[in-house]
Amino acid sequence: MKQFFSVADVANLSQLVDEALQLKSNPFTAANLGKRKTLGLVFLNPSLRTRLSTQKAAIQLGMDVMVMNMDKEGWALETKDGVTMDGNTVEHIREAAAVMGQYCDILGLRSFPKLQDREEDYSEDLFRKFMSYCKVPVISLESATRHPLQSLTDLITIREHWHETARLPKVVMAWAPHIKALPQAVPNSFSEWMCRAQAEGMVDFTIAHPVGYALAEEFTRGATVMHSLDEAIEGADFVYVKNWSSYEDYGKIHSVDERWMIDSSKLTLTNEAKVMHCLPVRRDLELASEVLDGPHALVIQEAGNRVWAAQAVLKRMLEQLLSDN
Amino acid sequence: MKQFFSVADVANLSQLVDEALQLKSNPFTAANLGKRKTLGLVFLNPSLRTRLSTQKAAIQLGMDVMVMNMDKEGWALETKDGVTMDGNTVEHIREAAAVMGQYCDILGLRSFPKLQDREEDYSEDLFRKFMSYCKVPVISLESATRHPLQSLTDLITIREHWHETARLPKVVMAWAPHIKALPQAVPNSFSEWMCRAQAEGMVDFTIAHPVGYALAEEFTRGATVMHSLDEAIEGADFVYVKNWSSYEDYGKIHSVDERWMIDSSKLTLTNEAKVMHCLPVRRDLELASEVLDGPHALVIQEAGNRVWAAQAVLKRMLEQLLSDN
Amino acid sequence: MKQFFSVADVANLSQLVDEALQLKSNPFTAANLGKRKTLGLVFLNPSLRTRLSTQKAAIQLGMDVMVMNMDKEGWALETKDGVTMDGNTVEHIREAAAVMGQYCDILGLRSFPKLQDREEDYSEDLFRKFMSYCKVPVISLESATRHPLQSLTDLITIREHWHETARLPKVVMAWAPHIKALPQAVPNSFSEWMCRAQAEGMVDFTIAHPVGYALAEEFTRGATVMHSLDEAIEGADFVYVKNWSSYEDYGKIHSVDERWMIDSSKLTLTNEAKVMHCLPVRRDLELASEVLDGPHALVIQEAGNRVWAAQAVLKRMLEQLLSDN
Repeated sequence: MKQFFSVADVANLSQLVDEALQLKSNPFTAANLGKRKTLGLVFLNPSLRTRLSTQKAAIQLGMDVMVMNMDKEGWALETKDGVTMDGNTVEHIREAAAVMGQYCDILGLRSFPKLQDREEDYSEDLFRKFMSYCKVPVISLESATRHPLQSLTDLITIREHWHETARLPKVVMAWAPHIKALPQAVPNSFSEWMCRAQAEGMVDFTIAHPVGYALAEEFTRGATVMHSLDEAIEGADFVYVKNWSSYEDYGKIHSVDERWMIDSSKLTLTNEAKVMHCLPVRRDLELASEVLDGPHALVIQEAGNRVWAAQAVLKRMLEQLLSDN
Repeated sequence: MKQFFSVADVANLSQLVDEALQLKSNPFTAANLGKRKTLGLVFLNPSLRTRLSTQKAAIQLGMDVMVMNMDKEGWALETKDGVTMDGNTVEHIREAAAVMGQYCDILGLRSFPKLQDREEDYSEDLFRKFMSYCKVPVISLESATRHPLQSLTDLITIREHWHETARLPKVVMAWAPHIKALPQAVPNSFSEWMCRAQAEGMVDFTIAHPVGYALAEEFTRGATVMHSLDEAIEGADFVYVKNWSSYEDYGKIHSVDERWMIDSSKLTLTNEAKVMHCLPVRRDLELASEVLDGPHALVIQEAGNRVWAAQAVLKRMLEQLLSDN
Repeated sequence: MKQFFSVADVANLSQLVDEALQLKSNPFTAANLGKRKTLGLVFLNPSLRTRLSTQKAAIQLGMDVMVMNMDKEGWALETKDGVTMDGNTVEHIREAAAVMGQYCDILGLRSFPKLQDREEDYSEDLFRKFMSYCKVPVISLESATRHPLQSLTDLITIREHWHETARLPKVVMAWAPHIKALPQAVPNSFSEWMCRAQAEGMVDFTIAHPVGYALAEEFTRGATVMHSLDEAIEGADFVYVKNWSSYEDYGKIHSVDERWMIDSSKLTLTNEAKVMHCLPVRRDLELASEVLDGPHALVIQEAGNRVWAAQAVLKRMLEQLLSDN
């Protein structure tokens, strides 16, 4: 694996999930694979789970990790080409990426969208330039439009908690209210991965959101989309709760309708569904405390699985690096 | 040891001090004890000594260390239960702590008091919730009301510099002036530890402060309290200099009386006392430069001993972890 | 080597360059030299290349690395002696340096000039006090007036890309426009190292800058100084592009004359010169994109060489430490 940016970078989804679960059973099976290899984690935005779980995964593979909070320990990067850099940006992504590629065998990058210009965000210009100029394998720690480590984690978590063989689990991604305009990266990515998983006969996938919150079509092909939460979650085995701002009316908040918040009474409509969320979650705004603190919530185990997703991906990248040499 | 939050978590004070001094003589006796164990250090507030000494201690035990500056690299945490999170806090301590516990075998947490609501600060609500929800052993890197790694360090330093057997060392904690309102955590903790040490026949302990600066009674039981600096330090073997804001008139500064600053002339009243301070110290405001730069000051050695205090505590926690498995 | 602050700390320039290139060929020849030794990297200012390359170098020597962003994770330091610390500074450099020396075997420090008081900046008061009080070897990660790891890197890069034996390479440091007032540290240091290299028969060195941009004489003794860019770069084998603010009219910007920007047409005057820059570089302000993206640019390789410069210096310091014990 030479990059991990979207589900398209995964040749065999089921195998990768299996490998992650094997690493969870036995974290140190490849404890020397990354020896004398350096992972650089570059953050242009805050991070808790991604930061710690990816570090932990790398350490368990024997790698050395260097963290660079570019926004706080460094300076502002220019991404546009052909501009005279006489403004606030101090270094161009061309140089910054290339230099970090000199020091690291694999790089991770986190970069949020600005939510102002849809075309710019969805071009993934910054991320693509970073991947291109650094000349080493890049693992996405969340980009403007995707968060593949989260989605792989989610698929691992669903696999781990589904034991029936007679039927597929019904997975519903349910939009939830929020007061801040959030990126579509997590829901895009979850949808992209679930549509692929559905196509490969692993899940049955439905999306529920209010009118005006349709995601970009490229991420949702094959999904059942509904505008009624109650209808969508009927018989659900997994409910994946997530807010996002509008893609159509880009970056805007149309609704904070509290009837879209999953609580215990909503859960009665489901098949004793497990409730997932990528975290951080705003209690009693996005998701009811009674659910988060109850037996249906999987959010902590899900966050814990971030380690195994990252470790499986890094392992693949290291194997590729070693076979290339 | 499953938590290190106050002196009550230490079964045998003298043994822990001895162990720290043995580690100082031979830092790598347990260099593999922490192999494949991860320490997470979570800072909600700035830190120099605590940050570096705890990292160093963990490294010398073979642990991997991950540092999380939650205030700068992450986001604001909610601690109150039962509130709709539609304000500035992004994640609840329930989730944040539980998630960090997924990635780390032991966690350290630093969290200062706000000095606005005494009851809230002294409830140690944030710290107790963190300990409860993370489900792994927690080492305090300073909480709202205590700084036990500092106090253990101080006891180690006193033991190291006291060679008489015929009598106990007279230890005096002397309030000092400061222009900023500082927490009571360090003096509470020092007093708590010295009262325990006094009860176990290790020291003779006196506190000196101006009227209006009494600490909470729970920390000072057994101490001699005086309101005259000169009388208190008479014949002192160790003078522990520290400012704190008022506990009674909570978080307020009543006095910056420079006659409470220890200088060379004050030292003539003592028994050639060693002078200690947890640092950072404001020169010539809290403590005279002539003392800090002179032969009586122990402050640098004291700061150096932070490593051995942390290493002794982490060693205990690792031993417990390994015996539990 | 007990400190690495200026070229004067290097006994044999050519040997150190050779050693760095040997480490580049074989990064792990001394992979255990730094075992159980700790490098502390203290940043009072932002850093990308220096931060990552020095970490990487230390890791390859087997050292443990602790990073301290003193400006963000800590607090403001006082450097003046004899002042009552009742202002904004929280800790004196005397204590802060001494304490960090307790935790680390080698310390690195980065500290920029304020560009307000020339005498203060050029006294290197902060850096000298840090070196004096910490009592362990100190490696400069850039100080007010010098950046020796960059300069050693530059000499390594020139050596690596010069294969003629019949004559010396003509190296020209060319002032370039910038909109911000930058320190003289990099040009001072480059000049100091090139003058030494010239004296030892390794290069032929010229400086080109507009009138009003003369560097302090102590750094430029032996260099040919010209005020015409075109004349200076005639026949140049290496052009080292760098902006600096005025030393004479201290910290001021006198010119942003775009005719001082190196572009492809300027390069025709040279001997197919390789173009160097310490980075970050502002494209099309300091240096034309067409040059940075073309075959003459060495800037990425140069940045990559920062690792080997740091590793050679740290190796010397470790050897000294071990021979002292």
